[in-house]
Amino acid sequence: MQYFNSDYLEGAHPKILQRLVESNMEKTEGYGTDEYCESAREKIRAACKCPGAEIYFLSGGTQTNATVIDALLHSYEGVIAATSGHISVHEAGAIEATGHKVLEVESEEGKLSAKTVERYLASFEEDETHDHMVAPGMVYISQPTEYGTLYTKEELKEISDVCRKHKIFLYLDGARLGYGLMAKDSDVTLEDIAEYCDVFYIGGTKVGALFGEAVVITPTVKIKHFFTIMKQHGALLAKGRVLGIQFDTLFTDNLYFEISKHAIDMAMKLKEGLAQKGYKFYLNSSTNQQFIILQNKEMEELSKNVSFSFWEKLNDEYTVVRFATSWATKEEDVDALIQLL
Amino acid sequence: MQYFNSDYLEGAHPKILQRLVESNMEKTEGYGTDEYCESAREKIRAACKCPGAEIYFLSGGTQTNATVIDALLHSYEGVIAATSGHISVHEAGAIEATGHKVLEVESEEGKLSAKTVERYLASFEEDETHDHMVAPGMVYISQPTEYGTLYTKEELKEISDVCRKHKIFLYLDGARLGYGLMAKDSDVTLEDIAEYCDVFYIGGTKVGALFGEAVVITPTVKIKHFFTIMKQHGALLAKGRVLGIQFDTLFTDNLYFEISKHAIDMAMKLKEGLAQKGYKFYLNSSTNQQFIILQNKEMEELSKNVSFSFWEKLNDEYTVVRFATSWATKEEDVDALIQLL
Amino acid sequence: MQYFNSDYLEGAHPKILQRLVESNMEKTEGYGTDEYCESAREKIRAACKCPGAEIYFLSGGTQTNATVIDALLHSYEGVIAATSGHISVHEAGAIEATGHKVLEVESEEGKLSAKTVERYLASFEEDETHDHMVAPGMVYISQPTEYGTLYTKEELKEISDVCRKHKIFLYLDGARLGYGLMAKDSDVTLEDIAEYCDVFYIGGTKVGALFGEAVVITPTVKIKHFFTIMKQHGALLAKGRVLGIQFDTLFTDNLYFEISKHAIDMAMKLKEGLAQKGYKFYLNSSTNQQFIILQNKEMEELSKNVSFSFWEKLNDEYTVVRFATSWATKEEDVDALIQLL
Amino acid sequence: MQYFNSDYLEGAHPKILQRLVESNMEKTEGYGTDEYCESAREKIRAACKCPGAEIYFLSGGTQTNATVIDALLHSYEGVIAATSGHISVHEAGAIEATGHKVLEVESEEGKLSAKTVERYLASFEEDETHDHMVAPGMVYISQPTEYGTLYTKEELKEISDVCRKHKIFLYLDGARLGYGLMAKDSDVTLEDIAEYCDVFYIGGTKVGALFGEAVVITPTVKIKHFFTIMKQHGALLAKGRVLGIQFDTLFTDNLYFEISKHAIDMAMKLKEGLAQKGYKFYLNSSTNQQFIILQNKEMEELSKNVSFSFWEKLNDEYTVVRFATSWATKEEDVDALIQLL
Repeated sequence: MQYFNSDYLEGAHPKILQRLVESNMEKTEGYGTDEYCESAREKIRAACKCPGAEIYFLSGGTQTNATVIDALLHSYEGVIAATSGHISVHEAGAIEATGHKVLEVESEEGKLSAKTVERYLASFEEDETHDHMVAPGMVYISQPTEYGTLYTKEELKEISDVCRKHKIFLYLDGARLGYGLMAKDSDVTLEDIAEYCDVFYIGGTKVGALFGEAVVITPTVKIKHFFTIMKQHGALLAKGRVLGIQFDTLFTDNLYFEISKHAIDMAMKLKEGLAQKGYKFYLNSSTNQQFIILQNKEMEELSKNVSFSFWEKLNDEYTVVRFATSWATKEEDVDALIQLL
Repeated sequence: MQYFNSDYLEGAHPKILQRLVESNMEKTEGYGTDEYCESAREKIRAACKCPGAEIYFLSGGTQTNATVIDALLHSYEGVIAATSGHISVHEAGAIEATGHKVLEVESEEGKLSAKTVERYLASFEEDETHDHMVAPGMVYISQPTEYGTLYTKEELKEISDVCRKHKIFLYLDGARLGYGLMAKDSDVTLEDIAEYCDVFYIGGTKVGALFGEAVVITPTVKIKHFFTIMKQHGALLAKGRVLGIQFDTLFTDNLYFEISKHAIDMAMKLKEGLAQKGYKFYLNSSTNQQFIILQNKEMEELSKNVSFSFWEKLNDEYTVVRFATSWATKEEDVDALIQLL
Repeated sequence: MQYFNSDYLEGAHPKILQRLVESNMEKTEGYGTDEYCESAREKIRAACKCPGAEIYFLSGGTQTNATVIDALLHSYEGVIAATSGHISVHEAGAIEATGHKVLEVESEEGKLSAKTVERYLASFEEDETHDHMVAPGMVYISQPTEYGTLYTKEELKEISDVCRKHKIFLYLDGARLGYGLMAKDSDVTLEDIAEYCDVFYIGGTKVGALFGEAVVITPTVKIKHFFTIMKQHGALLAKGRVLGIQFDTLFTDNLYFEISKHAIDMAMKLKEGLAQKGYKFYLNSSTNQQFIILQNKEMEELSKNVSFSFWEKLNDEYTVVRFATSWATKEEDVDALIQLL
Repeated sequence: MQYFNSDYLEGAHPKILQRLVESNMEKTEGYGTDEYCESAREKIRAACKCPGAEIYFLSGGTQTNATVIDALLHSYEGVIAATSGHISVHEAGAIEATGHKVLEVESEEGKLSAKTVERYLASFEEDETHDHMVAPGMVYISQPTEYGTLYTKEELKEISDVCRKHKIFLYLDGARLGYGLMAKDSDVTLEDIAEYCDVFYIGGTKVGALFGEAVVITPTVKIKHFFTIMKQHGALLAKGRVLGIQFDTLFTDNLYFEISKHAIDMAMKLKEGLAQKGYKFYLNSSTNQQFIILQNKEMEELSKNVSFSFWEKLNDEYTVVRFATSWATKEEDVDALIQLL
């Protein structure tokens, strides 16, 4: 059986475990005030070339999204997101549970366009009844998107320009950010993201950590009492160093980028294999998630030997499924998978 | 200047004011426990032929929707509504403020179809990731819709059947219910609504009252402590009798239906006038709201003498506007308006 | 049977009904944007000698408290209130439903002292763990309090000073404000309240109106988008003029103050009568609520002829009950009551 | 420098790290559906002698409390807790953020008494205005309490009886449960807790784990869709096995109890040392937290060589401080500390 159903099948990169073991009996302050967290913060600031950034470590993506979005919005504001966005679909209403509407707008292959955002904002402002409506207070995007697609630097800049023109925040969900940054056709760097976004997070859970996401609050925005807001959201880990050590390791000697590159290499090999075998792609992804269209019968057959993800029903006969690689994917397993196809 | 911009331009039907004056110095218990409220409840139960219904009086539509929806849903559930529904667009996120997602689905001229609801529910249930999603706990519709359109008895029954099959609630927003019931082409009665819906409300604010909506909870659903839930939502009026007296008057001698019929007569006269003058309708409405398409320049011109509602921009050249009649519209004003057109 | 159980037993002052009748068929804009509301605002600004105040009209006390408090606080902040405060006890958790903790502190006869507030704030600031706690963002007081007691001008100033020193808001619940202002031993004017508080409301429901409270936002605080916040809380009345007309009437020719004075006169007459008959007062109130201690048997006996309010059990044998007068109380009824005692 | 400031200074018990290392490259399903979680669940059910219990793993105490309490309560209900309870003071309003009031009642040394709870519930039920109040839906206690004190089996039973009589839930916060169970004077077993409580959690963060709490839902209560509720609260860890492995290890070969016992042994040694040196105890604790009263000057002096916790100011001259031991405390460090005192 080959497992390509997600990018969080394994534990953590061995170097992380090693450092957890080494530091285990040290005594540190709690709640992210320890030296490991501080060191990780410095390395992330350096990687983002953003010395003024504030960095916080949280445990998971949904928790991070809900905490950050609630912290950025006034009570009467909502967040613009793609109808296919993670916060729109797969967070069990975590954003609404904090009282904020997700203002869903159309997207293409998971991506919002600056034009769509501009149209939404202009239309809101022109609407004579807009005082009876949820005011858009920020835009949520993810890089890569749920569909593995990527914003180019130019697209990111355009969305950022629209947000700044309308004085709303831009927040980027980087659950799989490493895989986006290392995609061969991507021209977006961490520095670009820190420049164009107000807040973003660097995903650890899917990129080498046991768990953990690093929120980067750039100097364009001041969030008062984010520590307390985290506590209120149940997002403040007592032994914060467990997160600090993980991110410190990931941002030492380029580990985060190297292991991300490995996942991309594996994904590209798999993509090529799928193409050669004549599989039909649902869309063209250059990141670690590959989506193909299978006839239902074919899907059933394949699922006997391979574990992949159901994505969505295309119609009564065909289904979209996802294969994901990760930092932990072994080349031999990709080879074995291609054999099986 | 002629005013057709909304159906809440005037105060209340004179009979209501008369009874408020007559009863003014009587002393009654507060919070809807007085005899006027009880009498109104009995009359509404009779009008709905639903002796087991529980009736509560609230102050306005958004308040009522938020209170009822929050009362009906579990914390992890959301409400299915048309993308054009009042709760989706024009309640400033009041539903989300109670922690619940509005699950917006496509509609036609403001109406949901049983098919759309069924497809949504089936797709939710089939989705292997649905435990990570907001569970649909109820369906919200309005009669008439925001666009003045109406569900037929058959359509209502179909939606109701889908809801009951999937064990979720059906809730009907009747802000303009009188105008729906008295529309000439409507085959839906109050009794039908009480049969097919679990909860609905009979609008007073737009149909003859100073303010007030009557929530009807049918015997298919038990809401524990709705009184306390109202209080928590700031929806419990101290002098509840002010609402009781209004609804008692509206449901005495068919007043609610008669004044609704008058609004329909006025709307049909206006509709005919508009048609004769060659105006283009945005859609075909048989209720008190008529939507027409005006060239922007024409709209500007007309707005000098007539007050109507901006509805939405159709495109850069044309705009949809709304004319509304009500229980208070005078025939001479309709005549005058037609002259002006 | 004599009714002294609350101050909202009757409808509205006849002058209000008269103006509702007179204006009934006029057509006005909705949501408080009409000329009646504007006129009422001007009169209230004048009465408060606070030309820069923003005024909004809401329907009831709990609704007003929840809307204002949610509007003033950041998500991580709470509101300091007396343990006996209305928001602490009798609003069914309306404040918490908006996500904010009521930080209950001890009070004496319903009153907070500046000292208590200062101690709370100092203790919070000194506490090394305060980033894990709810930050106090405002103080809530009521005038008169739940127990009919009053803050003196000096006490109000002291609390205000503490709040300003610690940069938190002071909000005053004036559900019965008229009765406080007209109490014979009160040295507090509307102008004082507008000076010492950041936001307060002038109660209509209990002082002559059918329903309605006027929120006064003084120039010391800017609340962005309060209109939208009201809508989100279900607190925006469609026919806003119904509130505007009521407050315009109450603030014409000193009506609000005159009818409040009448209630006080009636209360003082009743108080004297009670004293003469030897009843034991629970506390000394100079406002429209009088609290006495009755033996349970005596209470039962009296309740055959008089309707009063159960307040609280003092112990197994004695109960505290409340008699309330209002703008509508007739002198002959007070006489009759005293006869009965 | 000796560190006794908290019980979460170190990482995890070495056996846990060892198993994380061993299992690291295995591929498992996410979200707690893996075999490690299942194995841990079985072992916990056995330890509680409660085969029908449902077990879920969450990341931290505040998160767990907010998720469980929100899941157990109706929207109009609140939770009774000691004024000193963790949810009352040190969770930054996490409970209120979910819309529920914490109904704070007096406690003694952190403990609620059945009598206090009974009085609260009886008084609520007798209060004629209780429909305007937050309905108590559950009781929250912790074992050990914030003050290190313990409920006896009899006390626990009495509180449980009161709750069952009034049909509300009893929930126990076991952040430090191991240290309570192994206290020498405790007669309460895990089985007792599973019998008397409806839901409780077994703390891992403070008792040997890197992080993690195991929620035990006993068969007396059915929580529908707790998985989705966890997701909505940002409390669903993607790599759920990281929690499963930790609890599976803790509940293998009595590890949880043995390491808890060690912490108690160390605490008792420290307690004896403190007593011999003449320190004054704030209260008598038989668990891993010891509270003593220091003169401020003395406190300052001691803090040069020992790290302890500020607890609260007793008065202007004296302060209460806390020393905590844990599974990781070394005997030599306790000896060294005693030398220093």
